[in-house]
Amino acid sequence: MAFSEAQAIRLFTRILRRRNPEIVRAIGDDAALYRDGLVVTSDAYFEDVHFDRSHLEPSAVGARAVCGTLSDIAAMCARPAGVFVSLMMPPGMKPAELRELYQGMDAACSLYDTEVAGGDIVAAPKLGLALTALGRTRTPSLRSDARPGDYLFVTGDLALAETGRLALKYGLDARRYRRAIERHVLPLPRIKESLKLARDIHALIDTSDGLSTDAGHLATESRVRIVIDYSALPIADETRRLIQELRLSLEQFVLSSGEDYELLFTSSSPDLPKRILGTRLTRIGRVENGRGVYLRREGRSRRLKPTGYDHLALGNV
Amino acid sequence: MAFSEAQAIRLFTRILRRRNPEIVRAIGDDAALYRDGLVVTSDAYFEDVHFDRSHLEPSAVGARAVCGTLSDIAAMCARPAGVFVSLMMPPGMKPAELRELYQGMDAACSLYDTEVAGGDIVAAPKLGLALTALGRTRTPSLRSDARPGDYLFVTGDLALAETGRLALKYGLDARRYRRAIERHVLPLPRIKESLKLARDIHALIDTSDGLSTDAGHLATESRVRIVIDYSALPIADETRRLIQELRLSLEQFVLSSGEDYELLFTSSSPDLPKRILGTRLTRIGRVENGRGVYLRREGRSRRLKPTGYDHLALGNV
Repeated sequence: MAFSEAQAIRLFTRILRRRNPEIVRAIGDDAALYRDGLVVTSDAYFEDVHFDRSHLEPSAVGARAVCGTLSDIAAMCARPAGVFVSLMMPPGMKPAELRELYQGMDAACSLYDTEVAGGDIVAAPKLGLALTALGRTRTPSLRSDARPGDYLFVTGDLALAETGRLALKYGLDARRYRRAIERHVLPLPRIKESLKLARDIHALIDTSDGLSTDAGHLATESRVRIVIDYSALPIADETRRLIQELRLSLEQFVLSSGEDYELLFTSSSPDLPKRILGTRLTRIGRVENGRGVYLRREGRSRRLKPTGYDHLALGNV
Repeated sequence: MAFSEAQAIRLFTRILRRRNPEIVRAIGDDAALYRDGLVVTSDAYFEDVHFDRSHLEPSAVGARAVCGTLSDIAAMCARPAGVFVSLMMPPGMKPAELRELYQGMDAACSLYDTEVAGGDIVAAPKLGLALTALGRTRTPSLRSDARPGDYLFVTGDLALAETGRLALKYGLDARRYRRAIERHVLPLPRIKESLKLARDIHALIDTSDGLSTDAGHLATESRVRIVIDYSALPIADETRRLIQELRLSLEQFVLSSGEDYELLFTSSSPDLPKRILGTRLTRIGRVENGRGVYLRREGRSRRLKPTGYDHLALGNV
């Protein structure tokens, strides 16, 4: 039985009643938004679904979970204000591993001047982490804020994290994939970049599920059409090399690979700086009247289906 | 490898650094407390550790999880301000079960004028729910606020929920255990009672882990001695009947049974009303100089060890 994430969200939207006028935006964005600028987001990570303990040290598992969750805070243009962790602890987990896991979470929090401020621990068959992060913002950016005429931008390189994951998985020469592996092991959320860009950003999402899926969320929530220019997509040399080594389709790979945790946003400014706080910034498309996500390549335009990561579809395979 | 909860908290207190001066109280209380009165608590519930799907409908699983988590909000004298749910969805879970689970959560939220305002869904080997609840308070009560000379009070009946759980488990006559089964299936948190009592309460905790353990938390965090008067303990007829039917030790059962989600608190007032918003209120002991929890029974006093529920010790058996 495979639920898609979209199906599940539709189900919840039907079942769950809104009662608190303090909550401006609930289910359907990167985080819930309260009237006073409080934002709250929850993310869960499970062994063998979201990470493979044989390739990642406990400290990396902890740090990645924090980074992934804080990325949703970045996607609201907010500053982190605390992380809460429910740990599902498997039988046989050693005290040293537990310590390293929390040291990894603390180290990731320290980069953003925040902290693990609470949580719970329960026994479970496999290692899991359910995180809730709080943030504060005066300039919230929603997925629904794109307007026809906007330009589409993305930070960093597309599919770089997935490049690193596959390089590790297939035992490729790590020195040639160093930057990609780093992005996979510790995908630093673009907190500072999003705060810096806040005035220029209309709609914003983080690229956790792959470009086609994430752009689809912006298009759906904003009720607009997004047209992506294939030739403009920022693709790292490491990714081109991996595609050759593994004989994959570059286009498919770049549109579908998730967990980059970059900022994907629209802005009315056609020209933003090429770098923001040292991070690459690339204009990759336009927002138009209409619906859906389109890819323009070599003069042709075709509609994209969301082919990125769907937590439930993949998880249930 | 069995960690006790206390060991785990000690470990985290050593590893996790405090960075945000906005956070007045982090790990070690029922919830984290922010300077502006925001409280945040996380709780996780796992199939076969915290509940048995063969005895509980999906809607009851959802409602209980919400009630258990909101009880930590009650334990801070706060008003609920939103619930965030990470669902661990097992293979083979039917759409109808998923719907009922969320309907149960929504129904429980509705009793406290709050809502499920966000969350995540991931595939997992067994059903699990990791909840984070937010609350707001102007009169926070911490575990560390007990003072020598205070009196100890508890709402409701001790061990009533466990009475209900065992009555179900052993297939006893449900009509004779109706109230106990209700308390097990839907342990309504004492949100309204705690707000009503706010001015009289010093230290406060909810009885989730059993009286000896929960009183121990108050004594440890407040650096006081708590002396419990055995003859004063509120014990329901259903519990006395169960003890006879199953030939258990009443004292042990009442001191160790968790998940009642009643309020256990200290107050300088010796005389509080016998009922608060219809809920029984009983004075069961005193706070003294010293350390530890003592039980006074038939003129004798002996030190109690925490014999209640320890999530990890039990979970790893």
